[in-house]
Amino acid sequence: MKKVHGLELKPIGVIRSPYKNRADVPYQGHRSERISLIEVLEEFEEGLQDIEEFSHIIVIYWFHKCHGYHLLVKTPWDDIPHGLFSTRSPHRPCPLGLTVVKLVARNKNILKVTGLDAIDGTPILDIKPYVPAVDRRPTAKSGWLKGKGKPEKKRC
Amino acid sequence: MKKVHGLELKPIGVIRSPYKNRADVPYQGHRSERISLIEVLEEFEEGLQDIEEFSHIIVIYWFHKCHGYHLLVKTPWDDIPHGLFSTRSPHRPCPLGLTVVKLVARNKNILKVTGLDAIDGTPILDIKPYVPAVDRRPTAKSGWLKGKGKPEKKRC
Repeated sequence: MKKVHGLELKPIGVIRSPYKNRADVPYQGHRSERISLIEVLEEFEEGLQDIEEFSHIIVIYWFHKCHGYHLLVKTPWDDIPHGLFSTRSPHRPCPLGLTVVKLVARNKNILKVTGLDAIDGTPILDIKPYVPAVDRRPTAKSGWLKGKGKPEKKRC
Repeated sequence: MKKVHGLELKPIGVIRSPYKNRADVPYQGHRSERISLIEVLEEFEEGLQDIEEFSHIIVIYWFHKCHGYHLLVKTPWDDIPHGLFSTRSPHRPCPLGLTVVKLVARNKNILKVTGLDAIDGTPILDIKPYVPAVDRRPTAKSGWLKGKGKPEKKRC
């Protein structure tokens, strides 16, 4: 068994994405059909066994270009400041990103996915199977985002 | 703006849970109506503004009692070893836990939730709103977990 200590994270891989910086990522990037590659380090390849049986996976990654945060933030969706934790802003105390992506194919340690709205070079911290019985919430409400189909201004 | 450096994470709060250790957590803990409290540090309270408008939130936490991993794991659901990343085992290279919970109420920096299957004292790293348009995957498939309604043996 390999040991893990403390709150220090070591990435398990890296994202190869068509988006070179944040401004390139479309607002509804999770709906995009553009392909990203998840290059898992070869030492972890065995841990991917059977993952191709799932149609969707949860990717947790490091917003490695974000180095600070405000507790109240304005988003592109309206002009009202909201608490940071009621937004998906990448600028967070623990800058962890999370996207549910569609798993298109696996080739050894490389996962081909769509709907990943992270930029090229983003370090990956964890991959989990999306399990409908566990993760789906059919009755969830959208809070202040209700009815906000399109952003009102450009991404900050 | 407060600065964040490197891959070193500082918890934003702690979970107060009825489960004192892993063996206490029910298998379908995400379906439980038992209340847990998320105590966000007071310094972050402002960041919770408007979160009570959402019915569900995503909680990312540290499996602080897990200090190692195997790349192939047997789960309570069958006798076949699966790749770690196609399971939700807490023993992971980056021991990050993720649960979508129901937000019952907020009192200042304290969130009252149900469906949180983490043990008492678990450090919280991030809270995000569950946004149906972003996070829901109605057609997702369950992979090797398909049809496995009940675990075949006790939790490891």
